[in-house]
Amino acid sequence: MEKIGVGLIGTGFMGKAHALAWNSVRPVFGDVPDVRLVHLGEANEELAQSKAAEFGFKKASGDWKRVIADPEVDVVSITTPNKFHLEMARAALAAGKHVWCEKPMAPKLAEAEEMLAAARASGKAAVLGYNYIQNPAIRHIRKLLDEGVIGTVNHVRIEMDEDFLADPEAPFQQRHEAINGWGALDDFGVHPLSLLHTLFGRVAKVMCDMAKPYPTRKTPDGEREVEVFDIATILLRLENGASGYIAVSRTAWGRKGRIAIQIFGARGSILYDQEKMNEFQLYLTADNPTEQGFRTVLSAPHHKPYDRFIPAAGHNLGFNDLKVIEFRQLIARMQGEPSVSIGFEEGILIERTIAAMARSFQQSKWTEVA
Amino acid sequence: MEKIGVGLIGTGFMGKAHALAWNSVRPVFGDVPDVRLVHLGEANEELAQSKAAEFGFKKASGDWKRVIADPEVDVVSITTPNKFHLEMARAALAAGKHVWCEKPMAPKLAEAEEMLAAARASGKAAVLGYNYIQNPAIRHIRKLLDEGVIGTVNHVRIEMDEDFLADPEAPFQQRHEAINGWGALDDFGVHPLSLLHTLFGRVAKVMCDMAKPYPTRKTPDGEREVEVFDIATILLRLENGASGYIAVSRTAWGRKGRIAIQIFGARGSILYDQEKMNEFQLYLTADNPTEQGFRTVLSAPHHKPYDRFIPAAGHNLGFNDLKVIEFRQLIARMQGEPSVSIGFEEGILIERTIAAMARSFQQSKWTEVA
Amino acid sequence: MEKIGVGLIGTGFMGKAHALAWNSVRPVFGDVPDVRLVHLGEANEELAQSKAAEFGFKKASGDWKRVIADPEVDVVSITTPNKFHLEMARAALAAGKHVWCEKPMAPKLAEAEEMLAAARASGKAAVLGYNYIQNPAIRHIRKLLDEGVIGTVNHVRIEMDEDFLADPEAPFQQRHEAINGWGALDDFGVHPLSLLHTLFGRVAKVMCDMAKPYPTRKTPDGEREVEVFDIATILLRLENGASGYIAVSRTAWGRKGRIAIQIFGARGSILYDQEKMNEFQLYLTADNPTEQGFRTVLSAPHHKPYDRFIPAAGHNLGFNDLKVIEFRQLIARMQGEPSVSIGFEEGILIERTIAAMARSFQQSKWTEVA
Amino acid sequence: MEKIGVGLIGTGFMGKAHALAWNSVRPVFGDVPDVRLVHLGEANEELAQSKAAEFGFKKASGDWKRVIADPEVDVVSITTPNKFHLEMARAALAAGKHVWCEKPMAPKLAEAEEMLAAARASGKAAVLGYNYIQNPAIRHIRKLLDEGVIGTVNHVRIEMDEDFLADPEAPFQQRHEAINGWGALDDFGVHPLSLLHTLFGRVAKVMCDMAKPYPTRKTPDGEREVEVFDIATILLRLENGASGYIAVSRTAWGRKGRIAIQIFGARGSILYDQEKMNEFQLYLTADNPTEQGFRTVLSAPHHKPYDRFIPAAGHNLGFNDLKVIEFRQLIARMQGEPSVSIGFEEGILIERTIAAMARSFQQSKWTEVA
Repeated sequence: MEKIGVGLIGTGFMGKAHALAWNSVRPVFGDVPDVRLVHLGEANEELAQSKAAEFGFKKASGDWKRVIADPEVDVVSITTPNKFHLEMARAALAAGKHVWCEKPMAPKLAEAEEMLAAARASGKAAVLGYNYIQNPAIRHIRKLLDEGVIGTVNHVRIEMDEDFLADPEAPFQQRHEAINGWGALDDFGVHPLSLLHTLFGRVAKVMCDMAKPYPTRKTPDGEREVEVFDIATILLRLENGASGYIAVSRTAWGRKGRIAIQIFGARGSILYDQEKMNEFQLYLTADNPTEQGFRTVLSAPHHKPYDRFIPAAGHNLGFNDLKVIEFRQLIARMQGEPSVSIGFEEGILIERTIAAMARSFQQSKWTEVA
Repeated sequence: MEKIGVGLIGTGFMGKAHALAWNSVRPVFGDVPDVRLVHLGEANEELAQSKAAEFGFKKASGDWKRVIADPEVDVVSITTPNKFHLEMARAALAAGKHVWCEKPMAPKLAEAEEMLAAARASGKAAVLGYNYIQNPAIRHIRKLLDEGVIGTVNHVRIEMDEDFLADPEAPFQQRHEAINGWGALDDFGVHPLSLLHTLFGRVAKVMCDMAKPYPTRKTPDGEREVEVFDIATILLRLENGASGYIAVSRTAWGRKGRIAIQIFGARGSILYDQEKMNEFQLYLTADNPTEQGFRTVLSAPHHKPYDRFIPAAGHNLGFNDLKVIEFRQLIARMQGEPSVSIGFEEGILIERTIAAMARSFQQSKWTEVA
Repeated sequence: MEKIGVGLIGTGFMGKAHALAWNSVRPVFGDVPDVRLVHLGEANEELAQSKAAEFGFKKASGDWKRVIADPEVDVVSITTPNKFHLEMARAALAAGKHVWCEKPMAPKLAEAEEMLAAARASGKAAVLGYNYIQNPAIRHIRKLLDEGVIGTVNHVRIEMDEDFLADPEAPFQQRHEAINGWGALDDFGVHPLSLLHTLFGRVAKVMCDMAKPYPTRKTPDGEREVEVFDIATILLRLENGASGYIAVSRTAWGRKGRIAIQIFGARGSILYDQEKMNEFQLYLTADNPTEQGFRTVLSAPHHKPYDRFIPAAGHNLGFNDLKVIEFRQLIARMQGEPSVSIGFEEGILIERTIAAMARSFQQSKWTEVA
Repeated sequence: MEKIGVGLIGTGFMGKAHALAWNSVRPVFGDVPDVRLVHLGEANEELAQSKAAEFGFKKASGDWKRVIADPEVDVVSITTPNKFHLEMARAALAAGKHVWCEKPMAPKLAEAEEMLAAARASGKAAVLGYNYIQNPAIRHIRKLLDEGVIGTVNHVRIEMDEDFLADPEAPFQQRHEAINGWGALDDFGVHPLSLLHTLFGRVAKVMCDMAKPYPTRKTPDGEREVEVFDIATILLRLENGASGYIAVSRTAWGRKGRIAIQIFGARGSILYDQEKMNEFQLYLTADNPTEQGFRTVLSAPHHKPYDRFIPAAGHNLGFNDLKVIEFRQLIARMQGEPSVSIGFEEGILIERTIAAMARSFQQSKWTEVA
């Protein structure tokens, strides 16, 4: 590949993040083809034109199908609401485009399975937007785990908490409808799972609880029952037998982007928190006994590919930089090279695990992940 | 009461802590009767004599029954292994002594119930050694909760982790035998429960998982199966419906005395960690929106009874100081005054909750606490 | 302005940061003219061509004068070693270009004064690369100070520490030569000063100490005397009479990008550390006395212009994002709008303060800043 | 010595701390003579009686001379205001008693010198109350420094900050009168110096600045000029040539008991903060480069004599425990054994350093410590 033509559908939170990342991937990494922002699709022509100008796309359409049909487009970024993912991804793959689709795959497992089938049929790269796994700190943690630095891992805990639904006085909104899934479980749960999959592999079985902190919400006319669960807690076992849990909440006042990971092994422990994404903590029994302690390791150029952004340690990457790394990995995948990424093949495992969690909750019992 | 005669049985970790605390409770608080260290009991006469001299007790016996029989003794501290608790507490109460017994009550629930019956029959103060609830920081958190400062609590998480059994190369020891109970569940689990009971009241139902990180341990001749579980994780619902969990581990490298509490309410959150026992964190939605954040509140004289130890804020109480506060509360209870303490009446609720957790694990299902 | 043509001279650490930021300023902010990467200059044609392709510049030259002469170029980014700043900035300004020059202005104060004269004569925007002042957290701190939230400030401390020269075994390098200035004083000291100027205004007088932790360094042939000082500590008084100090070190093992600020006022305090650039800490006496404490405020969309990068709180900006904000401010300045930036007019105050510090050290006495 | 008879003069903040510590030193350490609380002196008979009963002293006097004259008293704790130190210490030493006197020695250097002369003439143990040096964490830091774990130290910073005089609305009080000394310099400065002396030895020269954040204070009738300085900042050089500074403030809102130490060496760094007295941080270049970071080491039984208080790591000593350790060291000194303590011989060095700092401030120049 000498150049990569990019199509982008959607320009919200993630759409803008994609635009910024596509824009930066070449100047940051250098070793990639010429990336061209070709065609931007939005809900209507006017918005599409305005956003294309802002983000630097050459063409704009009020119909996403025109983006997919554009022969200059090699890869399509899909950042629309989840319910559109299947239709768009299938069309893009059928049109011979690589696909980059924001997580999760689709509201229903069956749809996600269809997406996987479409990806397999196309032979194109089909990747999901799990950006947290791209953090150099997380990558380095994986390296340490692979090298056995903390020995065999026997216990893992992940909490993911934010507070954007924590206000009980805030009115009923779309997010509170069951049509969007289970709530925190699928909205947040996929992120801890993406990290578990990246660091350890499959989850074997789960026992899930969910809770509704605020069972009703105000509407203009009165109040309405909240149909989703803003808190989920899941006991689990990894395939290697290690125990652990995932806890997720969208009503945790004060937590803004917390993804706190605790990993305990036979010879040490590792801690990480996404709110402090430029560091991790490491405890090693190999250290001198009277000076053992969790050391706070700041991200630095030797934690690849931090060096592509900044040549000095401790200077901080940002959330948007993770997307740039993600696209570098996507390009690797498009080029048939090894990559750290969650393609539809891996993503379906996450979706199936979520489905098993939901069944576990409904049946109130431990459930094997298919 | 003008004076209090103290008997102490046992002089290990907790026995020494008791001796230090009995010794300090009057100079610290001032407003209590004259506390006299009367009679110390140990496994044999020689050890008893030596420890009595060291700790300042007037008399010493190699037979604990002599301590209980001593007419100068008003209250007996029992700090022996759990299996002796029932016999000693029953005897002391029968002899008309107040009893202060280290937690947990007894290895079996039926024994604990017997202890409660003995306490009720005696009419004497019978209190358990739950020291963490005595921390001025914890007391202040309770006050904040009672005043509704963070609104209705809807989610609680408590982790208690240490690493004294984390080394897989360490040999098999008594602690690994089933005769001592379930492992982390009863050894550690009672502490988070004492905090839950103090802060919120009863646990309604539980779903418990346990894990053995190291299923076998070395013996001089070979190896032996570990019969207990060093990790337990328990999903739970409080009586008010709030969801939450307790996670305990004795194999968490790097954790030395961690009891991390996270409390989420409708108008704020509170965090606490026993490893940093002189502070807690508070997030309030009442704060100005652009300056909201967890504030770290250092223990200070206005967090009673910190002031009895130190007149200056931020100067740090220690673990042993909590025992002094505990004894002040015990004396209040002996005097028929209100006290923050876990007597046998409250302690039995903790024991029953542990029993429900164990049943839940055995039956692999949600279990109501009787 | 409908479009802005950018010229870039230099492609090292800062050169790349500039390229990335020019590239992103429009998609991030939206409300700016079309930014075009026009002409890149490097030491030779080949490197210039290669970097231009990588960074997305249309033209490339091995001679920086061609960049400046290019009529399509409206603004020139100068990221070459300090000794070239005067010549390049003067030429660019004389050619009617706006200038963006990395800090500090020039090795000698007289040169910096010349640069200022050239800027004044040209009437063009001439701005320096003080990126740390652009952090939304710092901007919000300034707002809080301006609003008097912590009352009148009476004491300020700033430490800036890194460890890239901390290894005593590392060989002698160019940085150790006196031709580069005083060492930590001018290399690092300008950053704390940029923050002091942004937050408080002028420094009135200074008392400076400098130290050489490693007076000699290895060379291939033997060893050589280190001519600069890797540590400087400066007592100071602000114009309003507040006392304080700046301490800077390039030999502080473990410090990677620390810029720790402590601000004490009559009604509260503010803390900040660049290593944790997405948060600041605030202590307010207006808080309820028993719950006063430093609160950790995470950067969020309401701390402008964080929202232009990410719509969710606590998700972290990175170091490179600060440059994007800086360029947005530069564009404002180019357009004659109010801006937060350190132009040559303000920059010269920093340079004069450094000069006063150096004199203070040489004469070992308190020295007024001219 | 088989037993130690204790006399105590004064029962304020420090007086109570002494009573508690004398009371606990034997049960904590075991290996010391029988400590008997013999005679308590206070300003009048009634207060003396009441406090003696509370603290467990056998006798009480309204005249301190009776305490000193008591033949059962072997050592006298002097915890009265500084202005009485000379008279009381001289009398006690002349009476053949060991002396334990709270820091600092005396308001004037000449008085302190007299105290030293009296101590030398008596041949008795004469020790000062510098409790922070007794922290097992500080002791372990000294051990690490002595062993060269972080290499030669070249830079040291100590900040000591509290906020008990931070409120500008608080009225004028005795502390604001010049008769009490310089203010923060002598009130606080002696603590950082005690740590410097313990960890590194003598200070060679100093350059001192002082500031008055609130130059006037309210009185019942109007307002009055504050005669002391609540902030002091001192540049310094240790005898080994290392540079550094001490900064002290009594008006630092939010700081409650901060004594923050930063020590930078050729192969690592050490950090400590008294507000988190149960931990220190260590950075070692000997660690694997990609995992270097400050490790937080929690105090534990292997940091002697933590084990005498608690057999489990990470369970926290308190401020009052430091006094117990201090008395164990005093007893060692009384017995002619090696001890970690600041006797009058060492204390006079601290006083002379303070005097040099004051001269430096008055003369506005670098000043050698005699």
